[in-house]
Amino acid sequence: MAVDLAPSPALADLARRTATFIREVVIPVEERHRGVVRSEDVRRHLQQAAKQAGIFAPHVAREYGGLGLDMLGRAAVFEEAGYSLLGPLALNIAAPDEGNMHLLEAVATGEQKERYLRPLAAGEVRSCFAMTEPAPGAGSDPGALTTCATRVDGGWRIDGRKWFITGADGAGFAICMARTSGQQGEAGGATMFLVDAGNPGMKTVRHIDTLDESLYGGHVELAFDNCVVGEDAVLGQVDQGFRHAQVRLGPARMTHCMRWLGIARRAQDIAVARAAERRLFGSRLGELGMVQQMIADNEIDIAASRGLILRACWELDRKESASQSTAIAKTFCAEAIWRVVDRAVQICGALGISGDVLLSRYLREVRPFRIYDGPSETHRWAIARRVMRRHDAGAAQ
Amino acid sequence: MAVDLAPSPALADLARRTATFIREVVIPVEERHRGVVRSEDVRRHLQQAAKQAGIFAPHVAREYGGLGLDMLGRAAVFEEAGYSLLGPLALNIAAPDEGNMHLLEAVATGEQKERYLRPLAAGEVRSCFAMTEPAPGAGSDPGALTTCATRVDGGWRIDGRKWFITGADGAGFAICMARTSGQQGEAGGATMFLVDAGNPGMKTVRHIDTLDESLYGGHVELAFDNCVVGEDAVLGQVDQGFRHAQVRLGPARMTHCMRWLGIARRAQDIAVARAAERRLFGSRLGELGMVQQMIADNEIDIAASRGLILRACWELDRKESASQSTAIAKTFCAEAIWRVVDRAVQICGALGISGDVLLSRYLREVRPFRIYDGPSETHRWAIARRVMRRHDAGAAQ
Amino acid sequence: MAVDLAPSPALADLARRTATFIREVVIPVEERHRGVVRSEDVRRHLQQAAKQAGIFAPHVAREYGGLGLDMLGRAAVFEEAGYSLLGPLALNIAAPDEGNMHLLEAVATGEQKERYLRPLAAGEVRSCFAMTEPAPGAGSDPGALTTCATRVDGGWRIDGRKWFITGADGAGFAICMARTSGQQGEAGGATMFLVDAGNPGMKTVRHIDTLDESLYGGHVELAFDNCVVGEDAVLGQVDQGFRHAQVRLGPARMTHCMRWLGIARRAQDIAVARAAERRLFGSRLGELGMVQQMIADNEIDIAASRGLILRACWELDRKESASQSTAIAKTFCAEAIWRVVDRAVQICGALGISGDVLLSRYLREVRPFRIYDGPSETHRWAIARRVMRRHDAGAAQ
Amino acid sequence: MAVDLAPSPALADLARRTATFIREVVIPVEERHRGVVRSEDVRRHLQQAAKQAGIFAPHVAREYGGLGLDMLGRAAVFEEAGYSLLGPLALNIAAPDEGNMHLLEAVATGEQKERYLRPLAAGEVRSCFAMTEPAPGAGSDPGALTTCATRVDGGWRIDGRKWFITGADGAGFAICMARTSGQQGEAGGATMFLVDAGNPGMKTVRHIDTLDESLYGGHVELAFDNCVVGEDAVLGQVDQGFRHAQVRLGPARMTHCMRWLGIARRAQDIAVARAAERRLFGSRLGELGMVQQMIADNEIDIAASRGLILRACWELDRKESASQSTAIAKTFCAEAIWRVVDRAVQICGALGISGDVLLSRYLREVRPFRIYDGPSETHRWAIARRVMRRHDAGAAQ
Repeated sequence: MAVDLAPSPALADLARRTATFIREVVIPVEERHRGVVRSEDVRRHLQQAAKQAGIFAPHVAREYGGLGLDMLGRAAVFEEAGYSLLGPLALNIAAPDEGNMHLLEAVATGEQKERYLRPLAAGEVRSCFAMTEPAPGAGSDPGALTTCATRVDGGWRIDGRKWFITGADGAGFAICMARTSGQQGEAGGATMFLVDAGNPGMKTVRHIDTLDESLYGGHVELAFDNCVVGEDAVLGQVDQGFRHAQVRLGPARMTHCMRWLGIARRAQDIAVARAAERRLFGSRLGELGMVQQMIADNEIDIAASRGLILRACWELDRKESASQSTAIAKTFCAEAIWRVVDRAVQICGALGISGDVLLSRYLREVRPFRIYDGPSETHRWAIARRVMRRHDAGAAQ
Repeated sequence: MAVDLAPSPALADLARRTATFIREVVIPVEERHRGVVRSEDVRRHLQQAAKQAGIFAPHVAREYGGLGLDMLGRAAVFEEAGYSLLGPLALNIAAPDEGNMHLLEAVATGEQKERYLRPLAAGEVRSCFAMTEPAPGAGSDPGALTTCATRVDGGWRIDGRKWFITGADGAGFAICMARTSGQQGEAGGATMFLVDAGNPGMKTVRHIDTLDESLYGGHVELAFDNCVVGEDAVLGQVDQGFRHAQVRLGPARMTHCMRWLGIARRAQDIAVARAAERRLFGSRLGELGMVQQMIADNEIDIAASRGLILRACWELDRKESASQSTAIAKTFCAEAIWRVVDRAVQICGALGISGDVLLSRYLREVRPFRIYDGPSETHRWAIARRVMRRHDAGAAQ
Repeated sequence: MAVDLAPSPALADLARRTATFIREVVIPVEERHRGVVRSEDVRRHLQQAAKQAGIFAPHVAREYGGLGLDMLGRAAVFEEAGYSLLGPLALNIAAPDEGNMHLLEAVATGEQKERYLRPLAAGEVRSCFAMTEPAPGAGSDPGALTTCATRVDGGWRIDGRKWFITGADGAGFAICMARTSGQQGEAGGATMFLVDAGNPGMKTVRHIDTLDESLYGGHVELAFDNCVVGEDAVLGQVDQGFRHAQVRLGPARMTHCMRWLGIARRAQDIAVARAAERRLFGSRLGELGMVQQMIADNEIDIAASRGLILRACWELDRKESASQSTAIAKTFCAEAIWRVVDRAVQICGALGISGDVLLSRYLREVRPFRIYDGPSETHRWAIARRVMRRHDAGAAQ
Repeated sequence: MAVDLAPSPALADLARRTATFIREVVIPVEERHRGVVRSEDVRRHLQQAAKQAGIFAPHVAREYGGLGLDMLGRAAVFEEAGYSLLGPLALNIAAPDEGNMHLLEAVATGEQKERYLRPLAAGEVRSCFAMTEPAPGAGSDPGALTTCATRVDGGWRIDGRKWFITGADGAGFAICMARTSGQQGEAGGATMFLVDAGNPGMKTVRHIDTLDESLYGGHVELAFDNCVVGEDAVLGQVDQGFRHAQVRLGPARMTHCMRWLGIARRAQDIAVARAAERRLFGSRLGELGMVQQMIADNEIDIAASRGLILRACWELDRKESASQSTAIAKTFCAEAIWRVVDRAVQICGALGISGDVLLSRYLREVRPFRIYDGPSETHRWAIARRVMRRHDAGAAQ
């Protein structure tokens, strides 16, 4: 077993520089804005600083201006970037842009890459991924997809409704998943379309007010209403949308885990600092057994999350089907990160629920991760189903 | 055992009328305001409606305008009122006023009752209870009390800093706990003082931004700075402040539990309605095993909370020392209610974290209850200590 | 609400005498036998002592030699008896005899009562309840019942296989549930039959080796093979077996909870005694935070269990359908009692897993309770289904 | 990052051969003996078979007859061996021999290696590690060590009491930790001594009856009473016993995790097989949501355990101080493995608690692992203390 868990010197250096950048440049901005930025000026300022620090868009191929990190490399760097809510935005590795770049690299034509990937990787535009639909449409169950695309002269016409489309406000383009064959309730076929902002058939219905607020560009409800696009708007192949989306899905799950693991570590550090300083009943808080238990459980949850991410990323880098390992990692991490932040709040007591530290902001930000990218229940169902199939296959031999 | 868990006809009727009032009058206001009201007009409107419905201030003695409910009676009614975030405000049984009325009834002089209790019970003024201090002052450890009161000619001068003083903004008076003997770190003696709004020595330092936002009048940091009050400002006896506070503490813990249990039931009802309506993978959500598990666990948590509240209230009504049973009930309820709301969010998925239902608001409101009124850890420590003492006493015989 | 949770003087006295009897008479026998008795001499000795103490068969009607306790009365006394593994045997309130007496009182004819109930209540014979079948027969799903009874001249012939029949070894008679109409997989109708030991058609296949070992008479697999009984063997009405079994089911769930709650208290007392005596890192074990947390959580679990039992028993005593409250109580108690014993083991460390205390015996005894009398999963499914139906009924109005 | 989680071809082959050996040779013996073997014939038979399979003592250096696996290699092979309770005995990698070999390789003199390590590695003798003492002696707190060794003419005299000495019955020698300087309650210095079976000063007091029963040679209480040994009995250096024990401690924790992880996988496989075969309410058990949740949680717990073991072993192989990572892995694995087996029991229902499958045997075997090798509470305390120190060191800069 040729396991060397130590990062290469270059990767270690990049991670270290990222950590320094977050501490020195990003956290002051995060604290000033209480974690939530809605200003293009701030975004541009942070991204400019990240470019100068040589850590911008590290996951993108070098030919499109990035550093070409594989998934294991991302694990090391994204966790450092995620140590601040604004770190991913600064490095241009925030959801959904980061996943969209990954998808475009894998699936787009050369022309599409020039037109969409290059400016996205440079931070010149932002993007969104329009898949989820309000009930009874596609959520955990893609077979329920209701948005349709029908052929029209020279292209396609898309009609349907999407919601919880993160980052849609201000995005330069959307990647929209639409049914191109079959009826709702059947598997059928779906296709991904690149839709430019400004297309009169794509409209913002509303900003959805959500518990979390830090993802740049908000969570938006979009209406596709007689939205006409050209043939060149098709991303990948017709009717292969769900297969192509898999390319995005597994890695995007993991990069969420990496980033939120950074926040878990941040929460733990805030709690530990408090436990070191605050005295209660004659001891430091951090010397009281129940507080020690919470601190230790946080360490355990963080370490276990990291181990599961490692495994899944290694499989993804080998181009294996990593659906089981990413489902396991996503389910565990989403719940573990939530526990860590919740314990950190508890350790800090009244301070923890006040705005004087950012913990309650973090609590709000990580809660939805147990729901998006597949709710824990859907992942558990899928995990168990794979186990049963593995058993059935073995028993059938 | 003369146990009859059925409420008396009169109590059952009051609880039913309260439930109807909440559903018909309060919830529409709650939904319009997304659970958070900061307007005196709305407060007055709701309280006027509750008076007309004959359910106002049900915990106050009849001679002060209430319905004279004992703790068991409150358990039945407050849970119904708590079914909406604004229900307690409407019935004038919200924290901290409700606990202050209870305290004033038990400890105040006749004159103080006329001056403070009567208008408070009528909803004409509001009040606050100024005990908690920023670190390193009194939080979970009352021996750490730093605010001092020293005798001056004709009265007392109070100096110190208080924070997380709920409802302080706009309160007509504060009940302030101050050290009147001993040094910080010693038990010493403390005294409660009635301080009128407008006393130039009592100043609002700031509103503390907190995860929860629905408690009327906010969470405030107060400065007592050369704050002079007369002899008649002493509530109860000098140096007996902590003993008197016990009168408030146990019942106030329980009424918090009752009210938040109402929100837990509300969250469950929202989730069940969603589970009944939403279909996934060909079934109703509520027919899927993992969702059924969450629904059942919510029922169990709600029932267990109610059972523990019942026990503690029965002890309180008998004027027993209910410190163990209230600590047990508070610890369990605060965590169980949190679990219920968290599961309800999970059942509702994306909807649950959106503002389209109030669940994420409820999640924010109930989280601090695991911290205020004694963090779970402090209660567990106290519970265990009592068990050990009971053992030691038995072993010593 | 006429709640008086204090037991009547007579009941308090009975509970106190039971506690004394357990401590002075039963525990020495339990310790000598490490909790597991398989000797008729010991059983008779213990039961004789309980008779002399005036606490024998307290749940049986006075006309059959008992004390006529209702369910709330049983809750107080059975918990005390359950403080030792052998207490229920001593008082003749152990499973399955206790539930069978309850069933016979409610359903049997006068003649059947004289022949079966009277000697059972006196401890002269024991009995068993033969319902559960090996897969794919009746377990959690009564519709799967495979054992059949067919009419023969002058009576019935029973054929089938039963397992996990507690107490069957040495029992004087069995109450056997058999299908009398419909096919397997249909609801159909079932009937209960009284089958005397010695009937050549009822044979012990084997003793099932199980994790728990303390239930007297073991867990047995029985074969009914051309087992002919007379008309007078029908208990209750033909085809009404499942309806009659409900009479037994709810109360039997609760009496299991009561008895095992006694063991939970015992485990906690052993752990607390250890925590008071053992020193670690310069403190008593019981002064270390993580141990305090376990002690407190045990208190909470015990108190919550008791509250849920109270509610369910009150409903049962009112002859209400208590299926929801007994399911809630059973599910919570089975898991809470398990947690309590598990924590007690952990507090005691190496001692806890040794035979030097009985904790690991208790751990083994309480684990199956999460499975028998309906696994937690089946109860949760039923609880959720009732909630959904309640919702549907409300929504339909 | 040069991470290649795929085992080398040679290691993969060894792991595969081990798995086959366990399935074909060991499991039939395990089932015949219900997991508990106390016969030298059976031990020799199994070890002979493992030698023939070329998988014997894989962790021992080649010069002493092993395969020279490092910790990462052990992780792969020991998990396969642990798939049966008797696998580790067969491969001669069971506790405590495996850890003792590791210790002797690192610390013993050449002469001691010939005399003790060589026959131990060959399975010709067994050994024990005599460190733990009954209260108030050394358990979680080594400073409490009471067993003393004092210099006598030509050697040392050891006096004291040890308990829970695994494998002591029939062991050829013991490694005994005794205080050689300082008083009880002080750190002082301790030394490890090699004591041959047959030394008249080392006596078996008793076999301790324990919840677990599968570790060969039992858990024994030993008395050292005027036990005289020569100078050459000193293992490592005088007064350096605890430092030397660290050499054993970290790896021994991990190999326990590896072996028990094998049992967790076995339990999961038994449960999955049952879930695939058993039908309930018209579905396979494994298609019911609550069962799927248990199956998925088992997968997650197994994967997370493996990830933490990987990290700790990598650190150990680098000769880093792996005290934090081994403490984290041990704490998580001990609890996760317990959860997995407990869920497997629950999935199997009545069958799970019967002796018809080995699940309840596994439940008994893994419970003590949350206590031995440091209780979870002690590890959490140590983990938190290291976190606090890391914080203090950072804050001091």
